[in-house]
Amino acid sequence: MTRFDTISFLSDYGTTDEFVGVVHSVIRQLAPHVSVIDVSHHVPEHDVRSGGLTLARSAQYLAPGVVLAVVDPGVGTQRRAIAVEVGDGASILVGPDNGLLAPAVSMVGGATRAVVLSEEEFHLPAPGPTFAGRDVFAPVAAHLCNGVDLLELGPEVDPVTLTPGMIPITREEEGHLIAEVLWTDHFGNLQLNVDPAEIESLGERIELRFDGRARTGIRRTAYDEIGVGEVGLVVDSYGLMSLAVNRGSAAEELGIATGDEVKIVLGEAGDDIDPGPTGAVTSVTLGAKP
Amino acid sequence: MTRFDTISFLSDYGTTDEFVGVVHSVIRQLAPHVSVIDVSHHVPEHDVRSGGLTLARSAQYLAPGVVLAVVDPGVGTQRRAIAVEVGDGASILVGPDNGLLAPAVSMVGGATRAVVLSEEEFHLPAPGPTFAGRDVFAPVAAHLCNGVDLLELGPEVDPVTLTPGMIPITREEEGHLIAEVLWTDHFGNLQLNVDPAEIESLGERIELRFDGRARTGIRRTAYDEIGVGEVGLVVDSYGLMSLAVNRGSAAEELGIATGDEVKIVLGEAGDDIDPGPTGAVTSVTLGAKP
Amino acid sequence: MTRFDTISFLSDYGTTDEFVGVVHSVIRQLAPHVSVIDVSHHVPEHDVRSGGLTLARSAQYLAPGVVLAVVDPGVGTQRRAIAVEVGDGASILVGPDNGLLAPAVSMVGGATRAVVLSEEEFHLPAPGPTFAGRDVFAPVAAHLCNGVDLLELGPEVDPVTLTPGMIPITREEEGHLIAEVLWTDHFGNLQLNVDPAEIESLGERIELRFDGRARTGIRRTAYDEIGVGEVGLVVDSYGLMSLAVNRGSAAEELGIATGDEVKIVLGEAGDDIDPGPTGAVTSVTLGAKP
Repeated sequence: MTRFDTISFLSDYGTTDEFVGVVHSVIRQLAPHVSVIDVSHHVPEHDVRSGGLTLARSAQYLAPGVVLAVVDPGVGTQRRAIAVEVGDGASILVGPDNGLLAPAVSMVGGATRAVVLSEEEFHLPAPGPTFAGRDVFAPVAAHLCNGVDLLELGPEVDPVTLTPGMIPITREEEGHLIAEVLWTDHFGNLQLNVDPAEIESLGERIELRFDGRARTGIRRTAYDEIGVGEVGLVVDSYGLMSLAVNRGSAAEELGIATGDEVKIVLGEAGDDIDPGPTGAVTSVTLGAKP
Repeated sequence: MTRFDTISFLSDYGTTDEFVGVVHSVIRQLAPHVSVIDVSHHVPEHDVRSGGLTLARSAQYLAPGVVLAVVDPGVGTQRRAIAVEVGDGASILVGPDNGLLAPAVSMVGGATRAVVLSEEEFHLPAPGPTFAGRDVFAPVAAHLCNGVDLLELGPEVDPVTLTPGMIPITREEEGHLIAEVLWTDHFGNLQLNVDPAEIESLGERIELRFDGRARTGIRRTAYDEIGVGEVGLVVDSYGLMSLAVNRGSAAEELGIATGDEVKIVLGEAGDDIDPGPTGAVTSVTLGAKP
Repeated sequence: MTRFDTISFLSDYGTTDEFVGVVHSVIRQLAPHVSVIDVSHHVPEHDVRSGGLTLARSAQYLAPGVVLAVVDPGVGTQRRAIAVEVGDGASILVGPDNGLLAPAVSMVGGATRAVVLSEEEFHLPAPGPTFAGRDVFAPVAAHLCNGVDLLELGPEVDPVTLTPGMIPITREEEGHLIAEVLWTDHFGNLQLNVDPAEIESLGERIELRFDGRARTGIRRTAYDEIGVGEVGLVVDSYGLMSLAVNRGSAAEELGIATGDEVKIVLGEAGDDIDPGPTGAVTSVTLGAKP
């Protein structure tokens, strides 16, 4: 009896080598009924935070099933290999216990159970200890799709012992909201860790400071409404505030990138703002769709 | 009753972010029986002409079904979202009305019907207005595969009102055929907007001018027949004339690229050439195969 | 009666153009039941050796079925198009006869039969002679999946007449084992053509020479055990010796790359080492899995 028919796969493997293809091949042989959807394999190498955010942005759109995620600087040593159940079994995330899975798990309501992947009968025998995606995570994901029970994969662990994700939250300081660029997308748009509620009391024109420079951001409801030469502040397609410019790259135009600080001047209205929930935490369910 | 089982997907999303994976995931949930084939996601950002040509080159090889194409600098504002039927329903192209779909539609015989995608019940609810691929085009493509009728998606519009594609055609001027590089491929080959019939009266050695320089192109029937140091003129795998060099990049060797002008010296025979049909327009059907 | 349901596809096409998508589309129409797994399409252009090694590393993990491989500098001319059967029909490799398939064929026990793909009824009619992946190899792969017999595709040829692969083997010279970098992976790890048995008599610290410089390699069992500033020697996930550094790129750190020579100082123990089998040849079967 098969249980899941979709595996969503994210990694920092790149696509130049055969890593991604080999993981697909391992799954194809163990669970031929499964469709594998590639979320992205171009997470910057070893960048756990970036991979975690990519997964969190995707989470509510992914098909229910297994999420296989591998960004794993500590492959083969101390860090545990884990499977984390969410939604009382609606989906299971498989990967290293290094914080990679945590933001997506939060995004869909938190873990309901978790196990450490120590039962080697569900792994492939490996000539070396270094390709956990192929030898541990992929076969475990396939076996879960085939109906193997979570608790057969290894001992249960309390989800609170899992490595947490590190998502920066905003803070107020001397009349500024101190924000951070979470993500620079392919088009050069800059996603901030700022929920629209955090700045709703501000006007249409919002003062920004970064790296000693000042710019004015103009609220816009679509990228195409941003005027030439203007810095637009839009609610992006994930519900967070993003900086964008007209048909170009805000990252290039502003000279800032992922991880950089952006100060938002709160002005007169700043003192009594309720910062509200951070945009990165909601209680939606993986694959929840109207 | 399902209607189509293949969606061919082209975009300028790149594969670094999760955009492509999320679109696959949306389709997977709405129409799990569908296979999504990625045509390319590396169209240069916002380059509607390049995306349109890529789709046109692919068109006759794509499986009948839905074509989902998103290169969309004006996302979220004035431009309309459309679905264009070809071959009396053999296939349907879904995307922005900005000229992107037009060359492929011409390539397969023209539109038989078209609608504007205004019925929001076939879209996903969006937190922001900016990810039309995920929130509008992908769900519409999936619903079409599930058997939703074209006319349910929004009001019908006359195909002549759709934004046309901009494919340059050759012209004769002072004894030259003025051509343009349509495409520089991965190997550096340079496809011209020149049908073999346009230069059939010329000899084996053809004089070329670009950017003030002169080179002689030699007609060859295979890339591997091009001699070292030689510029070959071959009928490429799409039936158009291409410039190529021996196991290297003609683009690098000649210092020209997509959009650049190439003059072909017509010489004595030039005056009475029938330029014939442009290579970019034929009446083949999407997916027509022997 | 269908015979195979998986095609594993490797090429040097890149993913910027539509080449890969068109090959998928051709297969989709001729053999809709088949899943195509992309091994990699970023083999360096025209680099037959690199493509052959990528395929060999993947071979034992690929699903039984058809392997479609195209790295083809001589497309359209002298080189033959071939299909090579392995494992008495367990799998069939399709591609150019230029050495590309040879390392993978060796890896899985050698060819049992081979044919030249001359029967044009199993090809697509081509407007030009230059896109063999689309017009010859993809349709042949699809027809094989549909149950077409190998011998219908063209005349049988003796596998010993096929172009061999060129895999460098180590040699001893003046107290050194002369090795070569076979592969620089996405993370900058450097795979050598050295089987662990070839250096098993050496100690934990092994002297290395490249390009006039000397470094000490330290044996480690996992990448994460490599100390900061240290050059680690690990048995990689393919069972060969690799050079690696701590959470960084050994290729950058050491300034060497694929094809470069690495001398391993054999010292006192060097004289009576049995160099053992090279790592690149085993008798495993394509898709052999526990």
